[in-house]
Amino acid sequence: MRSTPPAETFPAHTPAASQIFTTVLSQGPLTRLEAARRAGLSAAAVTKAVRPLLAAGYLVESADEEARPALGRPASLVRVDGGRALFIGLKATGGELIGVLTDLCCRIRIARRISLTDRQDTAVLAVMGELVHELRTGAVDFGAPVLGLGVAVSGDVDRAEGVVRYSPFLDWRDVPLAELAAKTTGLPVTVDNDVRALTVAEQWFGAGVGLADFAVVTVGAGIGCGLVVHGRVVAGAHGVAGEIGHVTVDPAGPPCHCGNRGCVEAIAGDAAILRRIRESTGVEVADTSEALALAHRGVAGAREAYAGAGEAIGRGIATVANLFGPERVIISGEGLAGYDLFAEQIRDTFTQAAFGSAAHCDVQTRPLPFEEWARGAAATAIQSFITPDDPPPSR
Amino acid sequence: MRSTPPAETFPAHTPAASQIFTTVLSQGPLTRLEAARRAGLSAAAVTKAVRPLLAAGYLVESADEEARPALGRPASLVRVDGGRALFIGLKATGGELIGVLTDLCCRIRIARRISLTDRQDTAVLAVMGELVHELRTGAVDFGAPVLGLGVAVSGDVDRAEGVVRYSPFLDWRDVPLAELAAKTTGLPVTVDNDVRALTVAEQWFGAGVGLADFAVVTVGAGIGCGLVVHGRVVAGAHGVAGEIGHVTVDPAGPPCHCGNRGCVEAIAGDAAILRRIRESTGVEVADTSEALALAHRGVAGAREAYAGAGEAIGRGIATVANLFGPERVIISGEGLAGYDLFAEQIRDTFTQAAFGSAAHCDVQTRPLPFEEWARGAAATAIQSFITPDDPPPSR
Ligand SMILES: [Zn+2]
Ligand SMILES: [Zn+2]
Repeated sequence: MRSTPPAETFPAHTPAASQIFTTVLSQGPLTRLEAARRAGLSAAAVTKAVRPLLAAGYLVESADEEARPALGRPASLVRVDGGRALFIGLKATGGELIGVLTDLCCRIRIARRISLTDRQDTAVLAVMGELVHELRTGAVDFGAPVLGLGVAVSGDVDRAEGVVRYSPFLDWRDVPLAELAAKTTGLPVTVDNDVRALTVAEQWFGAGVGLADFAVVTVGAGIGCGLVVHGRVVAGAHGVAGEIGHVTVDPAGPPCHCGNRGCVEAIAGDAAILRRIRESTGVEVADTSEALALAHRGVAGAREAYAGAGEAIGRGIATVANLFGPERVIISGEGLAGYDLFAEQIRDTFTQAAFGSAAHCDVQTRPLPFEEWARGAAATAIQSFITPDDPPPSR
Repeated sequence: MRSTPPAETFPAHTPAASQIFTTVLSQGPLTRLEAARRAGLSAAAVTKAVRPLLAAGYLVESADEEARPALGRPASLVRVDGGRALFIGLKATGGELIGVLTDLCCRIRIARRISLTDRQDTAVLAVMGELVHELRTGAVDFGAPVLGLGVAVSGDVDRAEGVVRYSPFLDWRDVPLAELAAKTTGLPVTVDNDVRALTVAEQWFGAGVGLADFAVVTVGAGIGCGLVVHGRVVAGAHGVAGEIGHVTVDPAGPPCHCGNRGCVEAIAGDAAILRRIRESTGVEVADTSEALALAHRGVAGAREAYAGAGEAIGRGIATVANLFGPERVIISGEGLAGYDLFAEQIRDTFTQAAFGSAAHCDVQTRPLPFEEWARGAAATAIQSFITPDDPPPSR
């Protein structure tokens, strides 16, 4: 859904061109030969793909001074010219809008936060317009055009259509956000689920670089999962994928907002942990920091709530590993603040429930602030810019 | 793992060539233009890829007489010449070896079954040698060379290494089957998990043709799942994937051979159903047909065992749908014999547990005899033949 034509278009629209550009973007600088090898393309295909990208200044080539041979010319390296273009990424939470201005290499140039007092779509759009305006004003200093806007929202988001089907935290249903944000900002807009956007950032620049199969599991208010299979983010044929939060842990467990019982999120989501602590300790904890404080003081009911959350998350991760066998699972999200309280339970339950060699999966944690999620949104905008005619790259 | 060099090699080793060949194989005959569109390649790439395949007789091109235009030449259609080469596929169950001779289009030319009285690897290999010899003798009539052997075995199979890591039904551990079978038969051998092999057959010739994302769920002695994501079968970074049988349904449920409790297989596998019927009715049912007869006579305990199995399978399918969002789930396997006893429970539980639009996934049943599984094994041999230098196509 691109309701606004971009200010300029990417000069190479073949799958090979976007593949080679993405490879150099995430793994460069690289020699042409190495880029060809990693992208699984022939040297001839790479030569053909890079020519217009060099001409338009998106790629630059220069001698590899570090690897200068004793005799003859040094090999030349291809890299993305980050300064060539700018992008904006926004991540909306229930209470805040986080925005970043990035260059073409998705390096954050400016970061801003604005609190959201009203979650209605029109109110959020007005704040988005304000934040984008502020970031574009700052962009003037960098002397490059802003070529796209990415917006990341939690919930069921149809990237191809640019519609937020359902976002529980914003309480939105069927909001045509790409169209509305394009009208407000005049930029081409890409809308995606926030966990999928974060997964793109991890795939291009984080702990997923070079991996064909990995998962990002986010813990916090919700429990989400971004999956990369065969090198591409899984979006689901009907727009739903990665719903690790609704893997059943215990069919007799607490009710979940999805209508089932004992889902991972109904046990390990922030609200579920608070509820369980209130029930077992009688203390009316108001928020997660109070709950954490109680557990860190050693209050049994609070510690058990976190331990139960760890078991539920461990079982969810084992289910992901048993079904698609990722090389790595990256645990992130604001829930990592309590990681010391449930890390052991996650590992033990995962190891117990993983089937055979699925237990060899590398489970690691990575604290990623919301600016990284906004950067993921910018990455989806860069994706849309370099592959505008494709089916959405997250499919 | 190819311990025997093939009698002849496929004359085109680029990813584009195997992609275009596979597209024509599963969806042909096609015009070059349509083949290019469906494979996502340029017309020039298709022209380059088909030239050596036409020259070597793997592809043939002929006028499309049905679509002859009023004026001018008819468009020409490209198709695979099935008679150009033959392949053998074997599927091993605990009690039987099923073998098929197929042509290059994976059409079954001869099918044979031999019972297995001894499950030791050496004994099974001897029977495999016998069956392959019989099929090769029959192959003489078709005047084409047999170019590969595919073997499908249930359990944890490492296709890249050609090793059966663990097969519970055969009670094998770390059997280097590809190497052993190549020594016995003199053919290049591909070994794969049986459900993944069946999934390849469904992807190329069955209910998965043209779908980028689908799942095959097999019910019977074990509960298995083959996943196709982004057009390729998922094998798992560590060789484990599709283990729907070990998705937890009830952590307080019956123990499973994997060491956990309440797995789908521990409730819905044949042995689990028999055990539950014996416990609740006191009738010492000896096998699945006795159990089915009891349930069809309306004996409450037997009906409940099947209903519980249906709920477990439905929950497993919902978990797959919530995590990957396949377009279609194909239920197959010998357990379909009791489908009328649990179809309703599968559907109800799936609908209840599917998250949001994941419920739109098309769940259908397809009875596939073991010859289809053996055909899947032949399909993996054809895959290895057309992409011998690639990482295994199931990765
Ligand atoms: Zn739920
Ligand atoms: Zn199990």
